Amino acid sequence: MEFTVYLAGEIHSSWREEIKQQAKQMDLPLSFVGPMENHDRSDFVGEEILGGQPDKILRDEAASAINNLRTELLMKKSDLVVALFGEKYKQWNTAMDASTALAMNKPVILIRPEELHHPLKELSNKANVTCTTIEQATKVLSYIFESK
Amino acid sequence: MEFTVYLAGEIHSSWREEIKQQAKQMDLPLSFVGPMENHDRSDFVGEEILGGQPDKILRDEAASAINNLRTELLMKKSDLVVALFGEKYKQWNTAMDASTALAMNKPVILIRPEELHHPLKELSNKANVTCTTIEQATKVLSYIFESK
Amino acid sequence: MEFTVYLAGEIHSSWREEIKQQAKQMDLPLSFVGPMENHDRSDFVGEEILGGQPDKILRDEAASAINNLRTELLMKKSDLVVALFGEKYKQWNTAMDASTALAMNKPVILIRPEELHHPLKELSNKANVTCTTIEQATKVLSYIFESK
Amino acid sequence: MEFTVYLAGEIHSSWREEIKQQAKQMDLPLSFVGPMENHDRSDFVGEEILGGQPDKILRDEAASAINNLRTELLMKKSDLVVALFGEKYKQWNTAMDASTALAMNKPVILIRPEELHHPLKELSNKANVTCTTIEQATKVLSYIFESK
Amino acid sequence: MEFTVYLAGEIHSSWREEIKQQAKQMDLPLSFVGPMENHDRSDFVGEEILGGQPDKILRDEAASAINNLRTELLMKKSDLVVALFGEKYKQWNTAMDASTALAMNKPVILIRPEELHHPLKELSNKANVTCTTIEQATKVLSYIFESK
Amino acid sequence: MEFTVYLAGEIHSSWREEIKQQAKQMDLPLSFVGPMENHDRSDFVGEEILGGQPDKILRDEAASAINNLRTELLMKKSDLVVALFGEKYKQWNTAMDASTALAMNKPVILIRPEELHHPLKELSNKANVTCTTIEQATKVLSYIFESK
Amino acid sequence: MEFTVYLAGEIHSSWREEIKQQAKQMDLPLSFVGPMENHDRSDFVGEEILGGQPDKILRDEAASAINNLRTELLMKKSDLVVALFGEKYKQWNTAMDASTALAMNKPVILIRPEELHHPLKELSNKANVTCTTIEQATKVLSYIFESK
Amino acid sequence: MEFTVYLAGEIHSSWREEIKQQAKQMDLPLSFVGPMENHDRSDFVGEEILGGQPDKILRDEAASAINNLRTELLMKKSDLVVALFGEKYKQWNTAMDASTALAMNKPVILIRPEELHHPLKELSNKANVTCTTIEQATKVLSYIFESK
Repeated sequence: MEFTVYLAGEIHSSWREEIKQQAKQMDLPLSFVGPMENHDRSDFVGEEILGGQPDKILRDEAASAINNLRTELLMKKSDLVVALFGEKYKQWNTAMDASTALAMNKPVILIRPEELHHPLKELSNKANVTCTTIEQATKVLSYIFESK
Repeated sequence: MEFTVYLAGEIHSSWREEIKQQAKQMDLPLSFVGPMENHDRSDFVGEEILGGQPDKILRDEAASAINNLRTELLMKKSDLVVALFGEKYKQWNTAMDASTALAMNKPVILIRPEELHHPLKELSNKANVTCTTIEQATKVLSYIFESK
Repeated sequence: MEFTVYLAGEIHSSWREEIKQQAKQMDLPLSFVGPMENHDRSDFVGEEILGGQPDKILRDEAASAINNLRTELLMKKSDLVVALFGEKYKQWNTAMDASTALAMNKPVILIRPEELHHPLKELSNKANVTCTTIEQATKVLSYIFESK
Repeated sequence: MEFTVYLAGEIHSSWREEIKQQAKQMDLPLSFVGPMENHDRSDFVGEEILGGQPDKILRDEAASAINNLRTELLMKKSDLVVALFGEKYKQWNTAMDASTALAMNKPVILIRPEELHHPLKELSNKANVTCTTIEQATKVLSYIFESK
Repeated sequence: MEFTVYLAGEIHSSWREEIKQQAKQMDLPLSFVGPMENHDRSDFVGEEILGGQPDKILRDEAASAINNLRTELLMKKSDLVVALFGEKYKQWNTAMDASTALAMNKPVILIRPEELHHPLKELSNKANVTCTTIEQATKVLSYIFESK
Repeated sequence: MEFTVYLAGEIHSSWREEIKQQAKQMDLPLSFVGPMENHDRSDFVGEEILGGQPDKILRDEAASAINNLRTELLMKKSDLVVALFGEKYKQWNTAMDASTALAMNKPVILIRPEELHHPLKELSNKANVTCTTIEQATKVLSYIFESK
Repeated sequence: MEFTVYLAGEIHSSWREEIKQQAKQMDLPLSFVGPMENHDRSDFVGEEILGGQPDKILRDEAASAINNLRTELLMKKSDLVVALFGEKYKQWNTAMDASTALAMNKPVILIRPEELHHPLKELSNKANVTCTTIEQATKVLSYIFESK
Repeated sequence: MEFTVYLAGEIHSSWREEIKQQAKQMDLPLSFVGPMENHDRSDFVGEEILGGQPDKILRDEAASAINNLRTELLMKKSDLVVALFGEKYKQWNTAMDASTALAMNKPVILIRPEELHHPLKELSNKANVTCTTIEQATKVLSYIFESK
């Protein structure tokens, strides 16, 4: 049995590579999907595909329509979601993706530094498991395949 | 990961071939399904399978029952829907297929000439992405598989 | 037991008044909802509430967002839908509303002139009942409350 | 027909009072629910009901369990959600509530200052309507009850 | 708390009156709905509303469309279903209504003479309770409102 | 794309073999499942697995529990259902299986002799397509795979 | 806004009266439902309504069918569930009712002595809130209606 | 067609091995999943992955979060559930898993000694089939694949 994991969260660090490498080292039958990790491509994809837009808000709107189509499809195909919150940025997309997954009854593992727990407390309580490190999240994924 | 795309819309031009060719050139892992493209077969299939009908409305009714069974099954198996509106015909089936997909939470890409935007504005707002050309739609499909 | 009926379809004739009057004369315990019937208000509501938009397509987009919120809410509250197709206009919203209702398992009564049956044949086959006149539709509504 | 509106978002300004007053002035048949607006009560409710907790994270966990039960129940009873983002705070709960509502097919009106549009662009694209002021949101609510 | 009960089954005996009277004598807060009990009205309603049909099968088709709209609506509004099978007739509608209710997670009480148990055994196993008399069914309904 | 078809209906004739052979001759990518076709095994499976039962009704109950588990599982895995009604037997299981499939939004093809149309009229109206012969049903299945 | 609360759990103490009294003292707009609290009536209702059964297991089966119909209906009508575990009895029904409610996305408050936490740990983790006393549960219910 | 079976219940005997061996001997196309069978690993996994916890209840809470994630995922992937109750332990997890499966419309086979029937009577009535031995359960699984 193989599972697909959606990796929600920031695209400015290498955390996705870490989780993929750890899963590979543990030989976990997992495949990973996630958002566009090229920040500029993600911001400009609307104009790049649909053409120039009148202002910044409309450029955002064009990009977000395409990003949302992508996320909607990949998340529907995923069996569980790992959502990582970091120190920087608003990260409302991470909150949106984790919440959407929970509302679709998909298990969610939350990774966040402990200092961020307070503003994340309600989302943490809804998530299945809340971790502090990437390694903890991978160990939770690994536990699914252990049996004895 | 492979996806199935339902191509809803008119059957009098070669737009389905274009989108399939572009997807092939881009090596996208997509397979395509759609309605019966032979107009006469689609109109007469009721009588051809179930026998002669008393009048034109009943001939339509017999055909539409079989067309609907086909669409219902193929759309349920599809991961997303591309719906193309053209200049001619009533195209109520295209509106029906796109709306049904949206109500089933399947992502929809709408293609229409800009002159038709006004009567399509509510459907366009519900669709995930609205394009003007087939090439734009294919680029949106392609974006799902990019990651960096 | 009272039911709410969503009246989908064109806003340029008085058909909604007819159906309401007939229901009143028959003392049917029905209340009716539907789209904004003031065409200008429906087209300009986006700019009237959210402010001027850069072009016609964006004016349409702003209006349709608000129209869709309204329809989504009122249709969810409705127990059945009557959808009327006339001779004029594209009427893609009518097709969208009827299809959405069917996908939500809400019963749909379709009213259309017989000449329009062919392009509506698939939607007609999915609808619960297809009529030619408003009076027929009201009689179907009335039948729900008869018992002997 | 009366609707219940869940007012998601910050609890440090009087925006809920504004929206309630405007709705009252317009005689809209709406009732409003929302989160606990007393910040301290919301943060300490876990310990106040369940007793002292070993550390700050567990105090948060106890509080969030009770806050989530409340939100889950009230949102299920609501017909639509207004979610307001302001300049301050992480506001991950607001993102969570809006996303949950959208995943439950409840219409969402987003209010945010235009400067925040970029980090909210994906949520804004999923929301039914995005506004800049409270008054715009109330006008959208009012439009549901207009018909001519 | 009041419940609505759909009474599915034959329309050639007075069993619905019996169950209603027993419920009234026990003061149960129940209201009852069901199919058109006038056999001729049920058979001819298609032609009576929509006009003459080319043959018997099409007369049946016109009637059944309207009967199904009625049943679909009333059953959706019902909290539970009592389905009675008798000695005569095919009674495929009764089997259809009971099965539909079960698939919609509505509780079903089956009433049937013991001689008919064998051909009904699978439906009986799926139903919540299987009775032999109307009085037993009413006692089951009554038990819902007892508490001590 | 391959589909699984559940063949509901009587187990006393060879109609399942006919449909399988026709599908094979047409090279349709279909696999077929259905109920236990050995009548005695179906009737006695409860006692054969769970041991002797006190009376005939309880023997039926034991068998039907196991038959229902089987049908529930196989039908959930099926993409569409063909339900055949013949001249003999009560055939309430056929009505139950077809109705359950329709309530689960699975397409249903009904086969019945025209003489039986009247008592089946409501089920026929709900089914996607109603045929008179097995060959017609296979042609409908075949149509799903044609495209031009 | 009024809510209905299903009180799942043992029927050998007066805990339901306590919770009702506390809710009354706090003027909470709640109504309460629950299982048959008369143990003998609950155990013998099958025979009392349907007649004598061949053995003890079949007597249980007859009673449980009727108890399950009652619980299924009342729980579907409930907005949240309070489930109390005590020191005695197997209490598998309590576990079943709480789990069913959670699977139906109904909020659950669990009450249990701390000594029982270990065998209940997975159910406790799924429940929204876990309490030790009845008073704590009532305070959680009360919190839903506070706002400032 | 292959099915996945979730084996819910105690982890202190070798019943899972028995059922797997019997299925293998019968060449049934089944794969089996289930909970962590190493009792200590199951109890301590929270601390082993997430680190030391302040007390026993919190150690349980940390473990149960991870166990629940595992069960939620594996059960969603399963086609049916076999739940075994034995003489010892509280076995509330077994009741929870079986009830959750039933609420998700997954077929459930219950195995229990007859002496335990009384406290299990409601769960047994909801389960598809109730057995006394493992061999009976395997025979029910085998029946799914027989056809003549």
